[in-house]
Amino acid sequence: MEKLKERIIAEGVVFPGNILHVGSFLNQRIDTTLAKEMAKEIVRIYMGCNITAVVTMEASGIALAFAVASVLTIPLVFAKKNKTANLGNNLLTSNIHSYTHQKDYIASLDADFLTLEDTVLIVDDFLANGEAIRGMIDLINQSGAKLIGCAIAIEKGFQGAGDRLRSEGIRVESLAIIESMSKEDGIVFR
Amino acid sequence: MEKLKERIIAEGVVFPGNILHVGSFLNQRIDTTLAKEMAKEIVRIYMGCNITAVVTMEASGIALAFAVASVLTIPLVFAKKNKTANLGNNLLTSNIHSYTHQKDYIASLDADFLTLEDTVLIVDDFLANGEAIRGMIDLINQSGAKLIGCAIAIEKGFQGAGDRLRSEGIRVESLAIIESMSKEDGIVFR
Repeated sequence: MEKLKERIIAEGVVFPGNILHVGSFLNQRIDTTLAKEMAKEIVRIYMGCNITAVVTMEASGIALAFAVASVLTIPLVFAKKNKTANLGNNLLTSNIHSYTHQKDYIASLDADFLTLEDTVLIVDDFLANGEAIRGMIDLINQSGAKLIGCAIAIEKGFQGAGDRLRSEGIRVESLAIIESMSKEDGIVFR
Repeated sequence: MEKLKERIIAEGVVFPGNILHVGSFLNQRIDTTLAKEMAKEIVRIYMGCNITAVVTMEASGIALAFAVASVLTIPLVFAKKNKTANLGNNLLTSNIHSYTHQKDYIASLDADFLTLEDTVLIVDDFLANGEAIRGMIDLINQSGAKLIGCAIAIEKGFQGAGDRLRSEGIRVESLAIIESMSKEDGIVFR
């Protein structure tokens, strides 16, 4: 998606450790107009797939996922990163290791919120090492719902997780795929 | 807002410790149609206030806050609960004690994302003890932006935080205010 790539070039900042800072429009500060355009593009890509629910992982993917679910007028279900006092008792769980934050956590999803009849689209802002996506896929599989695919704003193509998922037959559509990035040479898209 | 109150009565579950579980439509699983209607109602309540940015605290308030910012076509800025590798260096911070989760945390907001010219609406899903709201107000005051008020989906009126804020001159508008709740007597609105 050209408009997203332009914003990444204009405002993205590369930090050590393969971190791309896009806080000015995608997380921390969200450009709601761009988010809605991204949502419409995702809906266009998955047109005809009969999606009945969007799943995302809290927290930074929620805005885009909400925008997608909102365009489709379907519910947004979100996986939570840690069990809290506000959750129900019928929890599905999946262990996840975050390379970004260098820690393990348990993702959970209330089994009551997805049914065997649901056809699910995963939406997230980033795909880096793919651990969050794999956790969500695990939770969706446990729920018995059918996974249609994943829609990602920014995929770090050079980390390979998107291609590994694709090679396993999982549909992964990213609005921008970064082939390489560094402070010196800037950001290059696939 | 009648439609929200009806959903709280129909689907809300009261848990020990003054916890109201509304995961089926407000968090965990978000009814995007209801969220959009709530957003429109919030925009109606604050009409004419010239809001330039919405602020919320991750994670459960993000969907409603995005919906509000989206209707107003203005940015959503969110305060994060813990400093992570993805954040910038120009951070404002505020110490918060969560009674719900019985722990302290540091909320942070990137000072680059609010300016002295911004007029800000805080949006959150719940107002219970008010600690998250006070943290956000602190961050907004530090940024130099002007706080217009707070818009809350569900206020636990019996915990008094909303009225304390109001008595300090802070505008707090809640779509549903719960006067009392218990497993035995159900949920009573103000």
